Amino acid sequence: MQRETFQKSTDETFMSEAIKLAGQALGRTSPNPMVGCILVKNNQIIGRGYHQKAGTPHAEVHALSEAQDQAKDATAYVTLEPCSHFGRTPPCSDALIKAGVKRVVVAMQDPNPLVAGRGIQRLRKAGIQVDVGVLQHEAASLNEAFCKAITTTMPFILYKTALTLDGKIATETGDSRWVSSVLSRQYVHQLRNQYDVILVGSETILHDNPALTCRLPGGRDPIRLVVDGRCRLAENSQVLTSSAESPCIIATTKAAPVDKLSRLQKLKNVEIWQYDTSRYVPLKQMLKDLVCRGWISVLLEGGGRLAGALIENECVDKLECFIAPKLVGGNGPSPLSGLNIQLMKDAIELYDLQADMNFRDIHVTGYFRPHEIIQ
Amino acid sequence: MQRETFQKSTDETFMSEAIKLAGQALGRTSPNPMVGCILVKNNQIIGRGYHQKAGTPHAEVHALSEAQDQAKDATAYVTLEPCSHFGRTPPCSDALIKAGVKRVVVAMQDPNPLVAGRGIQRLRKAGIQVDVGVLQHEAASLNEAFCKAITTTMPFILYKTALTLDGKIATETGDSRWVSSVLSRQYVHQLRNQYDVILVGSETILHDNPALTCRLPGGRDPIRLVVDGRCRLAENSQVLTSSAESPCIIATTKAAPVDKLSRLQKLKNVEIWQYDTSRYVPLKQMLKDLVCRGWISVLLEGGGRLAGALIENECVDKLECFIAPKLVGGNGPSPLSGLNIQLMKDAIELYDLQADMNFRDIHVTGYFRPHEIIQ
Repeated sequence: MQRETFQKSTDETFMSEAIKLAGQALGRTSPNPMVGCILVKNNQIIGRGYHQKAGTPHAEVHALSEAQDQAKDATAYVTLEPCSHFGRTPPCSDALIKAGVKRVVVAMQDPNPLVAGRGIQRLRKAGIQVDVGVLQHEAASLNEAFCKAITTTMPFILYKTALTLDGKIATETGDSRWVSSVLSRQYVHQLRNQYDVILVGSETILHDNPALTCRLPGGRDPIRLVVDGRCRLAENSQVLTSSAESPCIIATTKAAPVDKLSRLQKLKNVEIWQYDTSRYVPLKQMLKDLVCRGWISVLLEGGGRLAGALIENECVDKLECFIAPKLVGGNGPSPLSGLNIQLMKDAIELYDLQADMNFRDIHVTGYFRPHEIIQ
Repeated sequence: MQRETFQKSTDETFMSEAIKLAGQALGRTSPNPMVGCILVKNNQIIGRGYHQKAGTPHAEVHALSEAQDQAKDATAYVTLEPCSHFGRTPPCSDALIKAGVKRVVVAMQDPNPLVAGRGIQRLRKAGIQVDVGVLQHEAASLNEAFCKAITTTMPFILYKTALTLDGKIATETGDSRWVSSVLSRQYVHQLRNQYDVILVGSETILHDNPALTCRLPGGRDPIRLVVDGRCRLAENSQVLTSSAESPCIIATTKAAPVDKLSRLQKLKNVEIWQYDTSRYVPLKQMLKDLVCRGWISVLLEGGGRLAGALIENECVDKLECFIAPKLVGGNGPSPLSGLNIQLMKDAIELYDLQADMNFRDIHVTGYFRPHEIIQ
């Protein structure tokens, strides 16, 4: 019993290291998951690795390469079930078998239907002891976007908003600079650095004309996707004028003016996704198209109509809300004009709510569905 | 040095007990402050007391009476400077001198201009060691309403509101049952049990027809004050039909219909405060009138116009806000329609912000001015 407790705490310590390692590639692995691997022998770490980018070697390969011959009889801690199929790289379960590891500790089974326990079976068949589920919740949280996308072919959507303590995203005159604190706004650039796609409605472009780039040193810009059924955005909008450095997609419909589209199509890094509808972009189709292109995580920054429509269609997964400790009053806009629930008892509830004051605002996170552990 | 540290921690321990004792009379001492007193000899508590109600003996008297002869050479811990004047009871500083206590530890000087350090002087003149400032912040917080009222002749106002995470106090159809959780709503009844007066605008009565009573077992109702310049409330409003059990004041103006006023005046426990204005109740005058009547703490529960006007006039001291983890969207009402700030940079800021999730909602408290220690 004591020995088991010791083992458990040792396993969790090493797995926690492996998860940290995996997280170093935050925002860089899509459509792949982040994975970390640590090889341990005699309680010493003899190899470390993490998956850095789709198309490059998996975590296990890096760790095995660092450990060399010592990998024999070692224990491997892997944040996600080792793969058993030939993708862009050979199966990692085979590499672990070949290296002679004695035991493999896995945080979570791969939710990918192509793997789904087969990597674990393969290891066990080779006589390796495999223990699954150590820090499973943490590992699943790290890859919440991948888990959603691989099981549903829809991207994981985080809806980010900021409002005053009396529920306003702007004053009655429309002034919104700034609702949230400097620290909150800096953190939003961290989110942009992590998410594959940043999504806004045309109203946001028309009204605020944001660049939607990531202004962190060493950061990278997400794909900027504007939902604009009638292609109303100005041709000198910042999302277009900055397209040379940072890609932009305009999702539109048959209602878009043909000549304007042909001008936009000539801009570098600008894509037009024109759907065969008369005014409204088919949002679910558009989201599926993102996953087809390998973009699995979406940061939804507004506006209120697009966010309302996506929430109503149950496409949104997570909320991050910055509530600034200030009051402006009046009848200025609220964040979710596009949602319109009639009775308070039918309100959309959030789950796993957390609130902190890390950014001098009240920073709230919550999920649109109760948390399920992917098994 | 070590001895001083020991002394400090001992002093804080006993003072903390005295503050807890004082708090037992929460909501029962107005217009007096809450005061607790502990007598200690040889590290043993030999007497305890707290002020239970205006007009009854002070904390020190209770503690001395419990300690009897043992009080000689004891140390007294008092949460507020002992009084030096003859009010409804003889001065407590004299009672402590007479009992022969050796040392008096005081959390905070009395902000009452009638006392203002004179009780401390009186003790020191009698050769008693007096140390002031132990847990001063805690003691001042407990009596925040008293401190405000005694120094400004205006009551302390707590503005309480509840909204959804997207800033709505009701859906677009006006439905508001319920925004906040059962636990939050129960806590509001605790507030009603503590505050002297509950204040609402006529719109709240017309629209929601609340009883505004305290529905806690053993609780007591606050005075219910309705600001209703034109006396528009229905004569069968719950605040009126329940007046036999619980007092109600209607603050109104010359615009009120004479015959309606004379009918209301006949109701038991209903007072009409008719101001000499043509439509709007002079709010500051009305608040001063509350203090004149001995009511020093006000719980403002809405609506948006009254709350906006009071905030704009810098009459509000504290905010307690319950943010429910739910979304309703649309263009339903926000809490502060009566405030209308044009630029975000001019927003009213809140200080000493705290957020917790004690009631299954995000429970936020903040102050409208930075905290100053009353010295």
